[in-house]
Amino acid sequence: MRIDADRFLGDLHSLRGFGAAGVGKGVVRPAYSDADLAARRWLAEQMQDAGLRVEVDAMGNLFGLADGPSLLLGSHSDSQPEGGWLDGALGVIAALEVARAAQEAGGPAVSVVSFQDEEGRFGVTTGSAVWSGQLSQADADLLVDHAGVSLGDARHAVAEMVTGPVSPSQFTGFVELHIEQGPTLDSSGEKIGVVTDIVGIRDMKVTFEGQQNHAGTTPMHLRRDAFQAVSAFNALLNDRLRNVVTPQTVWTIGHLSLHPNASSIVPGRAVFSMQWRDADADRLARMEEIIRTSASEIAQAQGVALSYGPLLGLEPVSMDQRLRAALEAGAETVALGKWRKMPSGALHDATNVSRLMPVAMLFVPSIGGLSHTFEEDTDEDDLVAGVQVLAQAVAQLGSKT
Amino acid sequence: MRIDADRFLGDLHSLRGFGAAGVGKGVVRPAYSDADLAARRWLAEQMQDAGLRVEVDAMGNLFGLADGPSLLLGSHSDSQPEGGWLDGALGVIAALEVARAAQEAGGPAVSVVSFQDEEGRFGVTTGSAVWSGQLSQADADLLVDHAGVSLGDARHAVAEMVTGPVSPSQFTGFVELHIEQGPTLDSSGEKIGVVTDIVGIRDMKVTFEGQQNHAGTTPMHLRRDAFQAVSAFNALLNDRLRNVVTPQTVWTIGHLSLHPNASSIVPGRAVFSMQWRDADADRLARMEEIIRTSASEIAQAQGVALSYGPLLGLEPVSMDQRLRAALEAGAETVALGKWRKMPSGALHDATNVSRLMPVAMLFVPSIGGLSHTFEEDTDEDDLVAGVQVLAQAVAQLGSKT
Repeated sequence: MRIDADRFLGDLHSLRGFGAAGVGKGVVRPAYSDADLAARRWLAEQMQDAGLRVEVDAMGNLFGLADGPSLLLGSHSDSQPEGGWLDGALGVIAALEVARAAQEAGGPAVSVVSFQDEEGRFGVTTGSAVWSGQLSQADADLLVDHAGVSLGDARHAVAEMVTGPVSPSQFTGFVELHIEQGPTLDSSGEKIGVVTDIVGIRDMKVTFEGQQNHAGTTPMHLRRDAFQAVSAFNALLNDRLRNVVTPQTVWTIGHLSLHPNASSIVPGRAVFSMQWRDADADRLARMEEIIRTSASEIAQAQGVALSYGPLLGLEPVSMDQRLRAALEAGAETVALGKWRKMPSGALHDATNVSRLMPVAMLFVPSIGGLSHTFEEDTDEDDLVAGVQVLAQAVAQLGSKT
Repeated sequence: MRIDADRFLGDLHSLRGFGAAGVGKGVVRPAYSDADLAARRWLAEQMQDAGLRVEVDAMGNLFGLADGPSLLLGSHSDSQPEGGWLDGALGVIAALEVARAAQEAGGPAVSVVSFQDEEGRFGVTTGSAVWSGQLSQADADLLVDHAGVSLGDARHAVAEMVTGPVSPSQFTGFVELHIEQGPTLDSSGEKIGVVTDIVGIRDMKVTFEGQQNHAGTTPMHLRRDAFQAVSAFNALLNDRLRNVVTPQTVWTIGHLSLHPNASSIVPGRAVFSMQWRDADADRLARMEEIIRTSASEIAQAQGVALSYGPLLGLEPVSMDQRLRAALEAGAETVALGKWRKMPSGALHDATNVSRLMPVAMLFVPSIGGLSHTFEEDTDEDDLVAGVQVLAQAVAQLGSKT
């Protein structure tokens, strides 16, 4: 099987055109945005041109299906609010290229997927969570983005593309090529990472509700200031988590909105995101306990009310041995001595899909370790090496079945 | 001079209709909004009906002028993003009623003003700051609100009302009736507060610029998280200020925006408002020094860049003895034994106007001490008592000149 590097890179740049940010190679293509829908329509055309049968489920997950049992390759084509051109897009276009190359080589059968809302406008890898049955469509529809829009309303935008449910039983396994989104491969000078495990993640909204009031006439000791509660919670949490985490554990407050958010008003309400990740499920649970205890103590001490949104999350997942071995063999052929086995600190759709079938992943380097920013990039040589490893692995898996 | 309580309360409720929030008696009428402009047009009609000459300066400060030298009464009719129905509006409608009552009584001459942007969409008491010459129109035009709109652009909305500059030299003094916006009068059961001093205020935007990155793959020790910088700065500042402040001193972080504000991204930038108030100018300066030193230390320690917007502010101001004595005499007549002398913890347009002429202020109670919120309210008896004290003082001042 021979991949066409020019065709692959050309398509990757074409996909970048949908939602191009005008800043470097950055894209703005969040789930269900106009740019996301235009990209999905264009991808559907490419799938059709590649002889694949296009199907779209109610979430907007887009499949290009080969006949009969097949290996599923892919990732997602939605982006962060300010995203790079490769996060998700690389895995989708690589899948398309390998599907074409496999057809040209007379097999094996390869299907392609672009999942919806991997980047979590509404939750965490929402599209593959619904497809894999871990989140019901009814529950998903109640999820609300930071602007107050529900997923149930937002997905009307894909209604005209929907064909119906897509059965997972036709797929023999799932392989996802992705950028690393961290500094490991870039700093070691390696070209390929074969993933051993994907860390688990927890994410929930936390709300402190105090008393909105005038910032000039309300004495400090009478204030119930929601921002002060967040700040004190953050300090307490940082202090307590240091005792239970590993160097790989991370936790983040990335979203915060104060109400009414004016310089002359003591903030009456603060809503923020609390997210934490670790490869060990027990440690994730221990962290949750510390987060909830710390928030309660601060709420009590500062006289503010505390409430939580639903706890969204994904369990840590080990990669399938057979698929992983095929990727390792491909890496050894394409990048002899310049690849490594490594965990994934980022979560991926593969985490959800692992509930349905064997999954594996491979990484290419992220320059400077940067991702979820317009500056995200990877050398084109490394992009091509990634799709070559994927093709090698698919060919090897096909010859064995 | 006799004020007409029904006419006064009727007009106050009519003004509330412009931007009525639909929540209690709350209003949403920020400077230059459609509701603000409609309210100013309606006020101009009422001034005209009261025989006053309507003039509007380039900022949108609205005057109803008596002929010859006159006392100026008034306040502002713009509101906070979520404001009450009395903050500013009370002083404007009370001025209108006293102007009418004075005309009906054959004098003295009373002019009326509603200043623009007292609530600081763009700065701090912006309209009266420009009118009093403390801020040039050119500098004011460069001020930007939290949404990135410049004052220069926003004030196009009032262009068709503008008649030209309004000379301060025609006014013999300025008196502003306002709600207290704090708990003092409400908890003591008194009806009137005669203001002795207005505290000074400082307000500036602070920006921490770190590195936006992926919240799963960026190890904690490599992060330059702008939210973490704000939280650490806040904790350090609270700790240090406790040693220099009085029980009347206040400081507030009321506005904060993270960028890009998504749960899966380490925040690359945080912009927040830092505001502090005290009756002593030296203490305000000492607090500024502590704020800047603390921010620098945190920026250094966390590897983030630090920058400041312009420092906006107003100096502490003492009320004029003659005007204040007239208000005290009026309070003694209207609310015998149920009034007090007190400082103002909130700033007011009177602070700016004090640069041009003698000023004084009086307060009526705020129920529960609440203001800058939809819940803000005052008993109608107390509102009427306030306008009666104002009328008494105006009559007394008129009889002496």
